[in-house]
Amino acid sequence: MQSKISLVEMLNWDAEFDVVIVGSGFAGLAAAVEAKNADASVIIIEKRQTCGGNSIMSDGLLAVAGTPVQQKEGIEDSPELMYQDMLKAGRNYNNPQLARIVAEQSNLTLKWLINDIGVQLKDRVDQSGGHSVPRTHTPYNTSGTAIIKPFVTKAKELGIEIKTQTFLTRLLQDQDGAVKGVEINKHNHNEATQYIRAKKGVVLATGGFAGDVKLRTHQDPRLTQDIDDTNRSHSTAEALLEAMNVGADSVHLDWIQVAPWTSPDERGYGIAPLFSSYTVFPYGVLIDPATGKRFVNELADRKTRTDAMLKLSQPCIGIADTQGMANSGQNIDPYLKRKVVRKFSNLEDLSTAYGLSCQVLRETLNCYNNYIENLLDEEFNKPIREYSQPIQPPYYAVRLWPKVHYTMGGLKINSQAQVMGLDNQPIQGLYAAGEVTGGIHGISRLGACAVTECLVFGRIAGKNVAISNNHS
Amino acid sequence: MQSKISLVEMLNWDAEFDVVIVGSGFAGLAAAVEAKNADASVIIIEKRQTCGGNSIMSDGLLAVAGTPVQQKEGIEDSPELMYQDMLKAGRNYNNPQLARIVAEQSNLTLKWLINDIGVQLKDRVDQSGGHSVPRTHTPYNTSGTAIIKPFVTKAKELGIEIKTQTFLTRLLQDQDGAVKGVEINKHNHNEATQYIRAKKGVVLATGGFAGDVKLRTHQDPRLTQDIDDTNRSHSTAEALLEAMNVGADSVHLDWIQVAPWTSPDERGYGIAPLFSSYTVFPYGVLIDPATGKRFVNELADRKTRTDAMLKLSQPCIGIADTQGMANSGQNIDPYLKRKVVRKFSNLEDLSTAYGLSCQVLRETLNCYNNYIENLLDEEFNKPIREYSQPIQPPYYAVRLWPKVHYTMGGLKINSQAQVMGLDNQPIQGLYAAGEVTGGIHGISRLGACAVTECLVFGRIAGKNVAISNNHS
Repeated sequence: MQSKISLVEMLNWDAEFDVVIVGSGFAGLAAAVEAKNADASVIIIEKRQTCGGNSIMSDGLLAVAGTPVQQKEGIEDSPELMYQDMLKAGRNYNNPQLARIVAEQSNLTLKWLINDIGVQLKDRVDQSGGHSVPRTHTPYNTSGTAIIKPFVTKAKELGIEIKTQTFLTRLLQDQDGAVKGVEINKHNHNEATQYIRAKKGVVLATGGFAGDVKLRTHQDPRLTQDIDDTNRSHSTAEALLEAMNVGADSVHLDWIQVAPWTSPDERGYGIAPLFSSYTVFPYGVLIDPATGKRFVNELADRKTRTDAMLKLSQPCIGIADTQGMANSGQNIDPYLKRKVVRKFSNLEDLSTAYGLSCQVLRETLNCYNNYIENLLDEEFNKPIREYSQPIQPPYYAVRLWPKVHYTMGGLKINSQAQVMGLDNQPIQGLYAAGEVTGGIHGISRLGACAVTECLVFGRIAGKNVAISNNHS
Repeated sequence: MQSKISLVEMLNWDAEFDVVIVGSGFAGLAAAVEAKNADASVIIIEKRQTCGGNSIMSDGLLAVAGTPVQQKEGIEDSPELMYQDMLKAGRNYNNPQLARIVAEQSNLTLKWLINDIGVQLKDRVDQSGGHSVPRTHTPYNTSGTAIIKPFVTKAKELGIEIKTQTFLTRLLQDQDGAVKGVEINKHNHNEATQYIRAKKGVVLATGGFAGDVKLRTHQDPRLTQDIDDTNRSHSTAEALLEAMNVGADSVHLDWIQVAPWTSPDERGYGIAPLFSSYTVFPYGVLIDPATGKRFVNELADRKTRTDAMLKLSQPCIGIADTQGMANSGQNIDPYLKRKVVRKFSNLEDLSTAYGLSCQVLRETLNCYNNYIENLLDEEFNKPIREYSQPIQPPYYAVRLWPKVHYTMGGLKINSQAQVMGLDNQPIQGLYAAGEVTGGIHGISRLGACAVTECLVFGRIAGKNVAISNNHS
């Protein structure tokens, strides 16, 4: 029994654009470029001081199926296989239509990223946990900066306006509920509230809420402020909640990913994830300090590994060697310098350092080295690449313990990246892409699929908002 | 940029009550009686033709900790132990405050049910899956009717009005968002829309949405219409969604319980659950037809058992005997008559009927019978009661396959049963109790805790709405 009288028509807009994009990570920048390429005028608003959102501190890894680099390495892959891997990790809770789009458009998106945006990648693929084959493509510097920087350059070339330190405070709707613009506020509140008209629509690309202790404990009471997270600060939920305030539906908010490759010996994301993901998991072992034995397939999906680690009740020990570092194309020095990884010339010293039985550990490694020789992990069926070598001294070791990493849930979208209302109809003028959306990854996201998803759905959102017909 | 102009003040109300309760299952009736006992005028609206909601077709089992019947049987129990069992089943996703209230008020609520409402229970307790000790209290006829009927009688004695075949179509808010009444419609739409003022507030006790294929597939794409459910028809989500439409927050909508004690040889809930829960699980075995062996602790929590069953990809076989039926105080005739349970005079016939190897099955039973003798299940650590007997011919067998049963998620409430808004503040004038709420049971609800929760939080909602001060 309420009548919604819209003030949108009476408002003096401070500025107007065809498209307002909120957030300047992978999804927001992809949407901005595509909307601009479709002749829309575009503004990006970004709450942090600098562009790039949480994306800029990611490793920038892209899971892509059926690429030239894979073909060159003789790896048979397909969008169908990637889709099945995503569903397996997600325990089939994934929205199948959306997951399929990510897999099917991954290769085209990678080409676009290289050719149109100018992103440089390494000429290799790696195997991330939960993927059936190596399909992880890595930026030349193993950093999200390698993607964000060319994107920002491109956006500026195209004449896209970017307003940093600017918060979305409200989504403005007409009497029919269509989103017509945004109310924004400068971070320091030194400037007055402004109203920006979005003639075609608003794209929310505001990221996840792994750093939002209030919302995450509301959904999962275990994830209190005492648990570290891997995100850049301000990875919070205010835009998600504002969208829900105007009637957006949400899905899977309670599935919050706790990542298995972080170290308790540094704060936040740190550098341990690169060491563990590229070297320990594919070429080394994870050891339960209570038994001195392996306890999980080091290349299982994230949820499987995290659940196995949490059962140990204490950090596990990841062990790799010089050959593993060579295989992964990494340099050990920065890890040793930051004291996150320790070097041991023999197993005795390593065992003493972590309170392990040297005899048991030696048996564990001998056993694993046999699996390597035979290319078959008889215990955990970990996929072993044919050029892998037995683990030899000197050893590199890292302590690993999970941290909050990623929020699978978020706004419900359709295949056009339109945000869905509680009535299961799209909210006119409102689009979303990236981690702020939910449903694509089911219970647990596979590694290296987030960047792919951000780019695929960022592009879809940008293209569709630019051709939308959002009449008042 | 909307101004919500309330029409509530201009409305000609068709009727007014202090309290409007939506739904007449356990939670709604408990709320109604308590609100009336606190001197509020109360109306219940119920969409079905008859009272009782989905509750009336439940078995009416109540998990209660620290009761006289437990003491008589020498069972040591406490609210703390019940709370810990709930958290264990819920994988610690439970809202701890709300779960604790259920456990702590369970015994008081049972006394009230017996003494004030006049419900008759059996003079025994049974052990349900996932509970550390026997604490399941059962109505004299093992049916929700034994609770609903005295409640309805009590409600009529107290002068509570009940309108059946009446749907909630809207919650009516004032300009501040406080709920001031409801718009209702007769099922057949032969009557005009009516507006009922709720001077103190509205209690939603509208149950779960296990039968709402649209919402459940939206949250869990696996649960399509091809999967049977155990609920009474019309177990749908329209009231939940209307509450979310007016700003209510929700939690855990994606955790939908698929129950392990249903049979593919009958439709819906059926009678298999009573046979399996009371006889097979505590005194019999579950057999994987592919191996002829046990595959799970038959008294594990629901999720553990369902997950184990679904991995089999075909119905498992539950086997019990005459002694098990005697222990559970049940009569086998109705089960055999409905052909859901089959009787076999020897293991050869049973094996042939289900395509098992008789030799392997005999080994499995011999092994289990040894565990019974020694009161220790060496394989799955199932709790064995000291008076259990080895399984002997004749055998009773049932095929079991999971069905959608219960929705853990729903409206977010606080400890006063107030519905919380997206801003984490209570919505004035709006209360909820029972399966329409979420968060109490975490990922997986323990058996026999739902009725307890409905009654505990129904009472809390009824008492609090009656003393609320919901000024416009």
